[in-house]
Amino acid sequence: MLSFENDYAEGAHPQVLQALVDTNLSQQPGYGADDFSQSAAAKIREVCRTPDADIFFLAGGTQTNAFVIGSLLRPWEGVLSAETGHVNVHEAGAVEYTGHKVLALPQADGKLSAETVRSYLAAFWADPNHSHMVFPGMVYLSHPTEYGTLYTKGELQAIHGVCQEYHIPLFLDGARLGYGIAADPTLGFAEIAASTDVFYIGGTKCGALCGEALVFPQGAPDHIDTLVKQRGALLAKGRLCGVQFDALFTDDLYTRICGGAVQLAMEVQRGLLDRGYPLLIQSPTNQQFVVLDNDTLAALSQEIRVCIWEPVDETHTAVRIAVSWATRREAVQQLFQVLDKLRH
Amino acid sequence: MLSFENDYAEGAHPQVLQALVDTNLSQQPGYGADDFSQSAAAKIREVCRTPDADIFFLAGGTQTNAFVIGSLLRPWEGVLSAETGHVNVHEAGAVEYTGHKVLALPQADGKLSAETVRSYLAAFWADPNHSHMVFPGMVYLSHPTEYGTLYTKGELQAIHGVCQEYHIPLFLDGARLGYGIAADPTLGFAEIAASTDVFYIGGTKCGALCGEALVFPQGAPDHIDTLVKQRGALLAKGRLCGVQFDALFTDDLYTRICGGAVQLAMEVQRGLLDRGYPLLIQSPTNQQFVVLDNDTLAALSQEIRVCIWEPVDETHTAVRIAVSWATRREAVQQLFQVLDKLRH
Amino acid sequence: MLSFENDYAEGAHPQVLQALVDTNLSQQPGYGADDFSQSAAAKIREVCRTPDADIFFLAGGTQTNAFVIGSLLRPWEGVLSAETGHVNVHEAGAVEYTGHKVLALPQADGKLSAETVRSYLAAFWADPNHSHMVFPGMVYLSHPTEYGTLYTKGELQAIHGVCQEYHIPLFLDGARLGYGIAADPTLGFAEIAASTDVFYIGGTKCGALCGEALVFPQGAPDHIDTLVKQRGALLAKGRLCGVQFDALFTDDLYTRICGGAVQLAMEVQRGLLDRGYPLLIQSPTNQQFVVLDNDTLAALSQEIRVCIWEPVDETHTAVRIAVSWATRREAVQQLFQVLDKLRH
Amino acid sequence: MLSFENDYAEGAHPQVLQALVDTNLSQQPGYGADDFSQSAAAKIREVCRTPDADIFFLAGGTQTNAFVIGSLLRPWEGVLSAETGHVNVHEAGAVEYTGHKVLALPQADGKLSAETVRSYLAAFWADPNHSHMVFPGMVYLSHPTEYGTLYTKGELQAIHGVCQEYHIPLFLDGARLGYGIAADPTLGFAEIAASTDVFYIGGTKCGALCGEALVFPQGAPDHIDTLVKQRGALLAKGRLCGVQFDALFTDDLYTRICGGAVQLAMEVQRGLLDRGYPLLIQSPTNQQFVVLDNDTLAALSQEIRVCIWEPVDETHTAVRIAVSWATRREAVQQLFQVLDKLRH
Repeated sequence: MLSFENDYAEGAHPQVLQALVDTNLSQQPGYGADDFSQSAAAKIREVCRTPDADIFFLAGGTQTNAFVIGSLLRPWEGVLSAETGHVNVHEAGAVEYTGHKVLALPQADGKLSAETVRSYLAAFWADPNHSHMVFPGMVYLSHPTEYGTLYTKGELQAIHGVCQEYHIPLFLDGARLGYGIAADPTLGFAEIAASTDVFYIGGTKCGALCGEALVFPQGAPDHIDTLVKQRGALLAKGRLCGVQFDALFTDDLYTRICGGAVQLAMEVQRGLLDRGYPLLIQSPTNQQFVVLDNDTLAALSQEIRVCIWEPVDETHTAVRIAVSWATRREAVQQLFQVLDKLRH
Repeated sequence: MLSFENDYAEGAHPQVLQALVDTNLSQQPGYGADDFSQSAAAKIREVCRTPDADIFFLAGGTQTNAFVIGSLLRPWEGVLSAETGHVNVHEAGAVEYTGHKVLALPQADGKLSAETVRSYLAAFWADPNHSHMVFPGMVYLSHPTEYGTLYTKGELQAIHGVCQEYHIPLFLDGARLGYGIAADPTLGFAEIAASTDVFYIGGTKCGALCGEALVFPQGAPDHIDTLVKQRGALLAKGRLCGVQFDALFTDDLYTRICGGAVQLAMEVQRGLLDRGYPLLIQSPTNQQFVVLDNDTLAALSQEIRVCIWEPVDETHTAVRIAVSWATRREAVQQLFQVLDKLRH
Repeated sequence: MLSFENDYAEGAHPQVLQALVDTNLSQQPGYGADDFSQSAAAKIREVCRTPDADIFFLAGGTQTNAFVIGSLLRPWEGVLSAETGHVNVHEAGAVEYTGHKVLALPQADGKLSAETVRSYLAAFWADPNHSHMVFPGMVYLSHPTEYGTLYTKGELQAIHGVCQEYHIPLFLDGARLGYGIAADPTLGFAEIAASTDVFYIGGTKCGALCGEALVFPQGAPDHIDTLVKQRGALLAKGRLCGVQFDALFTDDLYTRICGGAVQLAMEVQRGLLDRGYPLLIQSPTNQQFVVLDNDTLAALSQEIRVCIWEPVDETHTAVRIAVSWATRREAVQQLFQVLDKLRH
Repeated sequence: MLSFENDYAEGAHPQVLQALVDTNLSQQPGYGADDFSQSAAAKIREVCRTPDADIFFLAGGTQTNAFVIGSLLRPWEGVLSAETGHVNVHEAGAVEYTGHKVLALPQADGKLSAETVRSYLAAFWADPNHSHMVFPGMVYLSHPTEYGTLYTKGELQAIHGVCQEYHIPLFLDGARLGYGIAADPTLGFAEIAASTDVFYIGGTKCGALCGEALVFPQGAPDHIDTLVKQRGALLAKGRLCGVQFDALFTDDLYTRICGGAVQLAMEVQRGLLDRGYPLLIQSPTNQQFVVLDNDTLAALSQEIRVCIWEPVDETHTAVRIAVSWATRREAVQQLFQVLDKLRH
């Protein structure tokens, strides 16, 4: 059955897979010291315009989030996150497992505002009892957010400014970064690298079989290798991520394939609106959120798989329709055909 | 430069890679619910003759070790391991990071004996102060060991018997299991499944790009999925491991390719002995350990990469020569040619 | 300077101290096996009407909270708490340090409602993605709350009913339990023991130098001793707590001295209302919360120490006035004299 | 029954208890900000000749050990300890619970040598794979050791020299420090403060009801208060430790009472040797270790309680006889009378 359930239903982009085939028997050192990882890192430094960046390749998003938060925070610190942030809700307590608290903040459309962050930090430091509280030691945000929304360049810079004022790092979770950059190129790799302290470029949902490229724009702290090993996140065949990211960052493959997906997602959005289905949220990226009456949802689900997001009221449900680099225009047309059929 | 440095220098066996190519665009659910993971699990249940086994696919060995030990031990327990065990020495404290102690025991050739384990357990329970000590809650062993050595079926059964007597699980780390089973088929999948409580079948070093198949022969405890997620070990594209293990367990590919490697390793061993180089240890599997004088080692290293294992005395060094499924006979011949050249 | 800043400004009730003096040179085994701890436990079992209860004495409240939550939760679980709960705000992340998430719920006057708890649990189990979320594995509440408020017997029973329905334990933090029971004896030791799975009777703030009596009404799980040792919470001289609780539970000393404090606190409350100072919250226990204009607060603070609780608006501040077993009526009169002087 | 089982069988030295009585109703701020803690700290700075030292009072030894090791080590580090060290054997895995490995080293009479430490450190840094290993990040030693033995000033300085060379802190566990300093005043407070980076002065076993004074001779790192709270080790009534240590460090009470115990212990030692009982180990401090035949032990145990240490052979057992500040000469005479009676 055709699926729009998520953006990780297929394998890798064919060019990524071909790169794995082409390099397969080249003997390489392990643990990320291979030529391909080095080459991929160099290309990422180039697009980020950060010649001193340190780059590590990890296998998945939750792993990367927990690693960054758990290894950069100091023992008395927690991480600020939107209450809807992936680290706060859908990672089974991976951050707390590292011993640190997620300090959840109010959000709008999945986004934090600089003002919210500043208020929290100001109130914390003004509290005479703050030495008995968890110190806010990092800001986490996702871009695109869990709702497909995006920060503007100005919004990101404003949050980064607050972080710098309070001397805490800003960490951007870019599990779907390619779709974000394709949708708004004014907040591209270089701008993100300039306005964060650490971020990652998602591979798993953007063309790779697995892998996230963790970027420290101004260089990483010492001993990251050992900590990656300790947390079970070090692949013996580091080449697996290296080869894939090397291919994704050759000839702009990464942003090109994500751009195609965003274009299709906009067609999905327009098609839904044209047919009178209201959006739950206005997402400019590859995830679209639409409200369906439950009868339509039930009938649709007979033919096409979508993701149940949340109940809206007793007779309506919000649904996520995820487009990816692998989605073909024919699939979108089929979606509309089914919807049109249901309306008659 | 030709390398015998380790057994993870290449990518995946070509048939494994081809399976990734063939299945690439099939839409599948995430997190291990895909058809390929199901199929691979069924095949593994078959070879293990354990119809009720639960099987999970994780990305790497340290991750799997820390996951099993950290999630099966109860809070007051630690894990018994040979002092040379990977978990005790070369995983950067991954077990302790989960909050548990590795209780290191004396070993011989990398192996624990049932007697050593029994003595420790008996002394622990006889100690009037044992409630202030770490309770031994699991036995960990690797097969093949870090020195390439193997347990016999009788030895494994004896250790398992002690574990059962003391009601603690036996965990077998099979990062290189294929080479072990190829070298001694009398301790095969079914025999291991019958004499352990949990074990894993290594993929990373035995033909896959990544991945270890974690097997609970009598079924897994509840909530493993959530814990795998929490520890950052859940791949969104679970198919990545599923497809590979499905290929490896089709037509005995796994044991066949490991068997070829063991044959070549035996040729290496004989060739070294024929040329008068003493072995550090008698290994029947794909890793060979030989003692070289330092001049020979220096000259050899100009042409072929090997792994420095440990100093033996002031003028000799033990070296590991690792063969894998990817090693060609020509490479072995080249090794001997270089050694022969050095002797003249 | 006279202080109403908190309820732990003095040492121990004289009878408690005398008991330490009287028993001082009796030789006793360590770690809680002493006669006094046994006797205290027997007396607590008696007032709780729980002949099978297991009772442990720990040194302080944060330690006890973190111990109970961290050792009873299973690895995939978190604890539900009012967002104002001490464990969520003022314990420096002690729960998260044990690896578990505090799942914060909306509250009213510091209290959770059965309905709030039930809604959360129902929504969690109905969520199709709950296996990627932290499982709610315990309910934590404080009685009296951080705002001095109390659950009624019916409210506690209702919450306990929800917990039983969902098979999770209810944990009651009784750091100030004596003041609660004195204020509302219809929810006494026996009623609390009947409607919780684990709770503690606070000593530090109720007449002891230190110490909390942790009660498992239906018996404790195994290995608590070892975990108490592991978490650094086992006193070698367990008698220190044993002697104190033995004295506190002789002739109702515990509730008598707390009752005196509650009476004085009610006089404070009436005196404040009579003088026109509004209460922040209606507290029936030993902590009173009053709103003062900032000028009054500044002048008062020259003569009497109170606890700044939180800003109310630009010209008013909420203040906590804490009465304890050690507060004398003269001190309350002095407080009023200062306030009366300030009003002229 | 008379007991020599341990050195924490009684309460507090009468002068310590009297100080608690005398100060009982003085209102003091909590959490260690009280006058008595300040005064005690000043006196400790004085005897240590470290005007810049930071001093914290914790409740017990295991708590202090786990706190120091867990909060000073960086995440990739472990602690070096004698394999017989309390932290390695008898603290129920408290260090590992903080996520760090105890790296156990060979010992003699419970002591580490500078040479053993240096060898380990040199081998670690020379190992090409050390980035996959636990970094040795601190040296832990106890003084007196678990066997009652002492480091000489030269030995301690030598170990400290190795630590400084490798830039890792030296931590001295002084749970029984008073007995050590009384036995060998050439390694006194000032000398220990000069040759360690952090140490503690044990109160629990040296005259107090509870409490250990943690000393950072050159000042503590930031945020210790918050970490003490987070680890459940912060007493609300910090005065409890403050008053006791203030009394113990008035007029040399601490070393005087420990000195009396050491004198009696030497009488015990001589009396045992005179009667032909061999020592297990030559201890100059308050714990004496003697080998008894099992018949003697059984008969002795009918009248006097001693601590079974370990079996020596099939017919002999090593026994610990612990003397403390509370032991009277009459008790020692009674011990000898019983032994003499048994020999007839």
